[in-house]
Amino acid sequence: MKFPSKVKLVDVGPRDGLQNEKEPVPAAVKIELVHRLQDAGLTEIEVTSFVSPKWVPQMADNAEVMAGIRRKPGVRYSVLTPNMKGFEAAVASKPDEIVVFGAASEAFSQRNINCSIAESMERFAPVVQAARAQGIFVRGAISVAVGCPYQGEVDPQGVELVARLMKEIGVQHCGVADTIGVGTPRKVQAAMEAALRHYAIDDLSGHFHDTYGQALVNTMACLELGIWQYDSSVAGLGGCPYAKGATGNVATEDVVYMLRGMEIDTGIDLDKLIDAGKYISDYLGRKPNSRAATAILNKRAG
Amino acid sequence: MKFPSKVKLVDVGPRDGLQNEKEPVPAAVKIELVHRLQDAGLTEIEVTSFVSPKWVPQMADNAEVMAGIRRKPGVRYSVLTPNMKGFEAAVASKPDEIVVFGAASEAFSQRNINCSIAESMERFAPVVQAARAQGIFVRGAISVAVGCPYQGEVDPQGVELVARLMKEIGVQHCGVADTIGVGTPRKVQAAMEAALRHYAIDDLSGHFHDTYGQALVNTMACLELGIWQYDSSVAGLGGCPYAKGATGNVATEDVVYMLRGMEIDTGIDLDKLIDAGKYISDYLGRKPNSRAATAILNKRAG
Repeated sequence: MKFPSKVKLVDVGPRDGLQNEKEPVPAAVKIELVHRLQDAGLTEIEVTSFVSPKWVPQMADNAEVMAGIRRKPGVRYSVLTPNMKGFEAAVASKPDEIVVFGAASEAFSQRNINCSIAESMERFAPVVQAARAQGIFVRGAISVAVGCPYQGEVDPQGVELVARLMKEIGVQHCGVADTIGVGTPRKVQAAMEAALRHYAIDDLSGHFHDTYGQALVNTMACLELGIWQYDSSVAGLGGCPYAKGATGNVATEDVVYMLRGMEIDTGIDLDKLIDAGKYISDYLGRKPNSRAATAILNKRAG
Repeated sequence: MKFPSKVKLVDVGPRDGLQNEKEPVPAAVKIELVHRLQDAGLTEIEVTSFVSPKWVPQMADNAEVMAGIRRKPGVRYSVLTPNMKGFEAAVASKPDEIVVFGAASEAFSQRNINCSIAESMERFAPVVQAARAQGIFVRGAISVAVGCPYQGEVDPQGVELVARLMKEIGVQHCGVADTIGVGTPRKVQAAMEAALRHYAIDDLSGHFHDTYGQALVNTMACLELGIWQYDSSVAGLGGCPYAKGATGNVATEDVVYMLRGMEIDTGIDLDKLIDAGKYISDYLGRKPNSRAATAILNKRAG
């Protein structure tokens, strides 16, 4: 097996994680979490989204959070912008990067954003253009890349289509997301290979949910393809709106534990990361949803 | 990646799992669990251990459980026998297989069984001889094969030593166990490669605990070496006496979910397996410790 010698992790906990909390988390807690993540060595953090507070009240404090962050040199702060209105609101917060998204399943696209995959990309085109004109990096995310709650299996052609359309409108980075966590190694590799037809390996990342316990094994399958960028969420924050009570994003702690054991450099201090996960878990009144964090916290407790 | 086309799973839940329960589980429940596992397609089940009830009261009903099982053709029933006294007690129960064990760490061997690794193997020699004379298959297990709660990291030489000694005394199969679940892919592969110096690939298996969330990724690392036999535990039964509150054996459901997705045949019906896991979890009054089972049960509940 040949693996990359370095991996970059993007912690999406403050956004993808905390937007699944019923009770909105106060801006000060989010800001402290971002600080702790950057202190632990994360070099990119998905901070918030600029979406209507009517739909996502958990992110209504987006501008406040972005303004409150003590920016650390070398760290990128990204925000989700679902449309031009969101983008325009986001600009004042000076994100390093915006995230746009499309679904690999027509059924999901129709149910979630009321339009076809192709239409969703057309709508993003002016956002991408505006961002790039202002020197803001544009990351694209392909959701439900291996499975869809409405259509079931998603084949690689769905991913290939979205990757091609994203490339055409100028999206610079392509994230392939197993939003509902149903993927297994070969299927995830097939999805990645479809995206690789339009994006270079250095412009591709994986985003895995651990709903069925497969996130790490899918990460390893992608490491074998040479993919070295992954999203993860401290303390496994986040759930799955399509499977109640299920696990959300893969825990950053579990990924870092694995990579450290494989001698793949992440630049992240696992102990500080576990502290960050404990901080937010304590606030939320529950245990970190990370097996590595649980084992290490138990060990610390003696 | 080339993987085996078939995998054999040995469910160790009734033994390795249930021996960690504070309250002994009644024999009738254990028997029903074994029946459900074999109905789900498991072809080998580690049923119980023949060890002093003073040390392991949870397995005091060993003979009753073995006598109560409705044996299914093609299924092997194994029991743990730590010494000659245990073996002699086990024989009347007609196990297809006995399991003996040694530690890959001297510190663990001394602390757990008060003798060196070499001495522990000498003690097992007459048990192995007696079993083979009666046509009972002998499986060996190498515990703490990558990490030890007393000594920390365990290097592959420890595994190589135990494998060699096991081979010398006539142990027919070698299981490599990450007892405390600290292993990561490369380390687990190194341990397996050490065992492969003395055992053929068809006589080797992996036994992974999910304490740090690494069990599936370690399984995949071994699949890549061609290893096609693994232990697992329905509903993730079992804990870790060295890390309180931590996860135990990898859940059979999570392994089967992964292998099914990779089109690797196990002969196991995932839905029936989940029912078996729900049966014992309901008895124990908790949820299955399996992410795949949790997600599928949530989905069933709508």
